Amino acid sequence: MEHVFKLSEIVGTSHEGSDAAIKAALKRAQATIRGVKWYEVVSQRGYIEDDGKVQHQVVIKVGFALDD
Amino acid sequence: MEHVFKLSEIVGTSHEGSDAAIKAALKRAQATIRGVKWYEVVSQRGYIEDDGKVQHQVVIKVGFALDD
Amino acid sequence: MEHVFKLSEIVGTSHEGSDAAIKAALKRAQATIRGVKWYEVVSQRGYIEDDGKVQHQVVIKVGFALDD
Amino acid sequence: MEHVFKLSEIVGTSHEGSDAAIKAALKRAQATIRGVKWYEVVSQRGYIEDDGKVQHQVVIKVGFALDD
Amino acid sequence: MEHVFKLSEIVGTSHEGSDAAIKAALKRAQATIRGVKWYEVVSQRGYIEDDGKVQHQVVIKVGFALDD
Amino acid sequence: MEHVFKLSEIVGTSHEGSDAAIKAALKRAQATIRGVKWYEVVSQRGYIEDDGKVQHQVVIKVGFALDD
Amino acid sequence: MEHVFKLSEIVGTSHEGSDAAIKAALKRAQATIRGVKWYEVVSQRGYIEDDGKVQHQVVIKVGFALDD
Amino acid sequence: MEHVFKLSEIVGTSHEGSDAAIKAALKRAQATIRGVKWYEVVSQRGYIEDDGKVQHQVVIKVGFALDD
Amino acid sequence: MEHVFKLSEIVGTSHEGSDAAIKAALKRAQATIRGVKWYEVVSQRGYIEDDGKVQHQVVIKVGFALDD
Amino acid sequence: MEHVFKLSEIVGTSHEGSDAAIKAALKRAQATIRGVKWYEVVSQRGYIEDDGKVQHQVVIKVGFALDD
Amino acid sequence: MEHVFKLSEIVGTSHEGSDAAIKAALKRAQATIRGVKWYEVVSQRGYIEDDGKVQHQVVIKVGFALDD
Amino acid sequence: MEHVFKLSEIVGTSHEGSDAAIKAALKRAQATIRGVKWYEVVSQRGYIEDDGKVQHQVVIKVGFALDD
Repeated sequence: MEHVFKLSEIVGTSHEGSDAAIKAALKRAQATIRGVKWYEVVSQRGYIEDDGKVQHQVVIKVGFALDD
Repeated sequence: MEHVFKLSEIVGTSHEGSDAAIKAALKRAQATIRGVKWYEVVSQRGYIEDDGKVQHQVVIKVGFALDD
Repeated sequence: MEHVFKLSEIVGTSHEGSDAAIKAALKRAQATIRGVKWYEVVSQRGYIEDDGKVQHQVVIKVGFALDD
Repeated sequence: MEHVFKLSEIVGTSHEGSDAAIKAALKRAQATIRGVKWYEVVSQRGYIEDDGKVQHQVVIKVGFALDD
Repeated sequence: MEHVFKLSEIVGTSHEGSDAAIKAALKRAQATIRGVKWYEVVSQRGYIEDDGKVQHQVVIKVGFALDD
Repeated sequence: MEHVFKLSEIVGTSHEGSDAAIKAALKRAQATIRGVKWYEVVSQRGYIEDDGKVQHQVVIKVGFALDD
Repeated sequence: MEHVFKLSEIVGTSHEGSDAAIKAALKRAQATIRGVKWYEVVSQRGYIEDDGKVQHQVVIKVGFALDD
Repeated sequence: MEHVFKLSEIVGTSHEGSDAAIKAALKRAQATIRGVKWYEVVSQRGYIEDDGKVQHQVVIKVGFALDD
Repeated sequence: MEHVFKLSEIVGTSHEGSDAAIKAALKRAQATIRGVKWYEVVSQRGYIEDDGKVQHQVVIKVGFALDD
Repeated sequence: MEHVFKLSEIVGTSHEGSDAAIKAALKRAQATIRGVKWYEVVSQRGYIEDDGKVQHQVVIKVGFALDD
Repeated sequence: MEHVFKLSEIVGTSHEGSDAAIKAALKRAQATIRGVKWYEVVSQRGYIEDDGKVQHQVVIKVGFALDD
Repeated sequence: MEHVFKLSEIVGTSHEGSDAAIKAALKRAQATIRGVKWYEVVSQRGYIEDDGKVQHQVVIKVGFALDD
């Protein structure tokens, strides 16, 4: 049986660091999409808030199986 | 509170030019998606119709906050 | 009338080869999305199963018109 | 019947802006090549003349059908 | 003797698949250009016709020796 | 006499469109740097403000001659 | 237990087409390397022999587990 | 009022890891540049010192508002 | 004396995060290759196991001096 | 008066080195095309002949003004 | 002690060739910046002067340590 | 008979220039690998030694036939 997967592009954010931002994005994806199989990092940025704190942002693509 | 954003890839078209094509895509996105925060231009093409008129096409990604 | 199109990123798989993987992805897209207009190949990979058989995977973007 | 198309890379210029530069390039292409079907933007630059005026330059590829 | 080669960018199409589209482009190139030495695949797309049939399009560059 | 040039990366913004954003960046560069010779567009984004208005942002590199 | 994999870049060739060239490269890899897990297509070219026949060349990376 | 921003490319280093290297670069930027608004990761490398210790290096671009 | 270095592409994995995956790959490289001088990150992905746990995968190139 | 330029992609070769290969390509271009204005290096390769001698190959694009 | 480095993008030119253009840029950088540690080639172009002579232009990034 | 080739990534260095660095890498490759067929330049960097002298570094891939 041939599977077809879909890729969805999401952005996780965290004040800790890039790894934490990836985990925030994955946590959200797994909570709302069934059968998440893999992720790929697309890019990494960060936004400096007025108080100087840094919000790290990681853009990832998550792949999940489309039900048959 | 950490936010998670989603990126959606859409193509705006216009017979005027690329700026008008971007605005057409944004107008459609803001009409159907809540909380559109930013856009990124991916690529620019155009299609020449039989009468020689040009349909400019701009591929953009729009980012919007996922509700919590 | 200006049209707006959406791009969706999907992965077709096949044990035959890359062309067959593209066709599997397109078949699925056309079955679930109305007005699929074009596709673009993003990348090609393959996964080697334990018995040595190869599952070819092609990532494509399909473009379709958003209803007005 | 299978068609074969050719891509030609040209640079339009304009003192107005990038959209005007694209139109200058397309106008020239349509005047000298039959069956121009589409264009793709490759890159955008500009040259600052001695009097400070700006010549915007847009590199595009135009695609046209090869006669059978 | 130093050779100089030229690269020409063409698009082959086929309803069969990408390999067939490459061969259609090469066939046309070899029929009209002498001394075609190599080709490189640039990108792969496809256009979905109104009846749902798929026209696969492969952009290739062909290299050929310029006569001395 | 061999010249050496420097490249500086700046971001112009405008609520009108991308061409206006490029001109805002160039205006600023020419006001503070002598001998601006050329510019290259690096990328185009935009930020959607709370009231829905769009701030178009274009990243360009400007090249200028280093005095001898 | 954390695994470490190695990537090796090889070029398959075939007079049939790109799919056949990928299979030739995989066949060789699986014959000489244990634990080949996946492949990624890097690029596709072809060489036109003197008699006009085409040797299709596909560059792939194969990934395999390093023994512990 | 249209803002113009500047991008500066800097390299943070750390023996801890990539996140720490990003923070070192940001700390330095915020200490010497007013109005740092965002950063983008360009690339990640590392240098292995003679004693085998690893100095992680992350190249980032920081964006800051140019005063009016 | 001119040195020649070799680059080897390997993939580190870890359930902790990307930094840990880089360190796993470096540890393995330094255990089997003499004179490892530097590494470059190529790409970052991750595989979601059946129990939902995430295996982070970082592709790096390690550079080492070839003995004379 | 707005100018339109054309870009042509050619490959220079030399047994000396890459600079010599660029000059061979430029020499040929200037001999057959009027108004060559600039060149851009696209890529550099080389072919090892049976006797071990190296033919360096540099792909360049040359830009020239189209007559009005 | 963690170091922070800065990258500056400059363009060297020479009528001799690309190597000479790189050296011209480095010479200028070392004359005006303390602690230049490395350079990376970004791109290579050239400008054909009215008398047919060629000005080779190489864009490089130079990295230097920021004083503590 | 279908051939399979392997690509190996090596870095040549020289105090003379980039062409000399390419030749140093090729010389080493031809001394240790049989059947080197071609090379491709991947990137060019250089390292500034403490005495200000420059070590030019060119990363190339060499392709060689795998014995049958």
